[in-house]
Amino acid sequence: MELAKYIEHTLLKPTATEQQITKLVEEALRYGFFGVCVNPVYVKHAKNISKGTDLKIVTVVNFPLGANAIDTTLVQTHQALSEGADEIDTVINLGALKEGDYKRVTDDIRATKNICQNNNLKVILETDLLTGDEIKKACLTCISAGADFVKTSTGFVKNGLGARPDFVRLMAQTVERRGMGVKASGGITTRFQAKELIEAGATRLGTSSGVNIVNPQK
Amino acid sequence: MELAKYIEHTLLKPTATEQQITKLVEEALRYGFFGVCVNPVYVKHAKNISKGTDLKIVTVVNFPLGANAIDTTLVQTHQALSEGADEIDTVINLGALKEGDYKRVTDDIRATKNICQNNNLKVILETDLLTGDEIKKACLTCISAGADFVKTSTGFVKNGLGARPDFVRLMAQTVERRGMGVKASGGITTRFQAKELIEAGATRLGTSSGVNIVNPQK
Repeated sequence: MELAKYIEHTLLKPTATEQQITKLVEEALRYGFFGVCVNPVYVKHAKNISKGTDLKIVTVVNFPLGANAIDTTLVQTHQALSEGADEIDTVINLGALKEGDYKRVTDDIRATKNICQNNNLKVILETDLLTGDEIKKACLTCISAGADFVKTSTGFVKNGLGARPDFVRLMAQTVERRGMGVKASGGITTRFQAKELIEAGATRLGTSSGVNIVNPQK
Repeated sequence: MELAKYIEHTLLKPTATEQQITKLVEEALRYGFFGVCVNPVYVKHAKNISKGTDLKIVTVVNFPLGANAIDTTLVQTHQALSEGADEIDTVINLGALKEGDYKRVTDDIRATKNICQNNNLKVILETDLLTGDEIKKACLTCISAGADFVKTSTGFVKNGLGARPDFVRLMAQTVERRGMGVKASGGITTRFQAKELIEAGATRLGTSSGVNIVNPQK
């Protein structure tokens, strides 16, 4: 199992500097990671310094609360793509999901996917805040809205556990027949965890510990 | 000291439902709070149900990471105002601040203030992630950029302390001659804390414990 190709080398800390993003991209290229995941403010920079490589630039919209007005999310998605983002990770409307307003959740995701066109759209469910039943319903909603991936976590929930193998398994079982991907993210720091999540059905890993995961002796 | 008029009754949890926002507005009206602070997705609803009152609707943009592209923040600000927001709380570009790129920090705040026009713009410094020196420099930058308030915290920093009287005092001392306001926020749960922060120089309090603060016997 070549772990590197699963990894989105991630730096979303609010204090991240341009210099740190440069280092992130350099490491991702050195270790052959799938991509980097950065905040929107750094998409242009990450794209510029990785030109001519096949490194994917992933960014986050409506993040991490999932509580922006949809029009803002659409503008933000469009801007990120025009600045060079290859994939978009958005956050599901958790309030609407809790209320059972699946139409609103679906409409928001579908509208975002319409902007993404052929670029992958991943939908973060924030599993730490959901029940198993809500996770399943969220996955079904993402299927019907045309998302490309479901993703576990933003990494910003206080005392959140992040990527749990049992939740990843539930997500994978719910979406697998539709050919959708599953991105595990949040608190993935070891090679053991990475392998366990892939065995549970993850097809992509979001982590800031990618170097340690592929190269544990370092 | 009438505490109610200092309070922005706040609910920014990603799982907040429309019903919970309704309750928030009703409580704010009942207790005579200055305003409510809600995520952008609920601005329209909060405005609708408080029409004809003098309750202020406060919302957050570029929140809570401060790492969106500025164009997105400007669109988001414009949309929030057009949907009925009276005041805008944004987050300072922490990466640029850490790098010492004060021009960028200033330009972003000034552009946002240009959209706000006469509506108050508060700038969240996220003091948990800054040194005293950085807080002071951030305040001076906010002054030169034309912001109306500096604000301590988003409330979303893991293990963050939120509003600390010493930091509020430093902020108040730095901005007081310019007639700017200081909003203390993050972890304010008691009447004692509220009074201590006002004595330190806070002119506004962001808290989800407003009912308990003004009515501690309940």
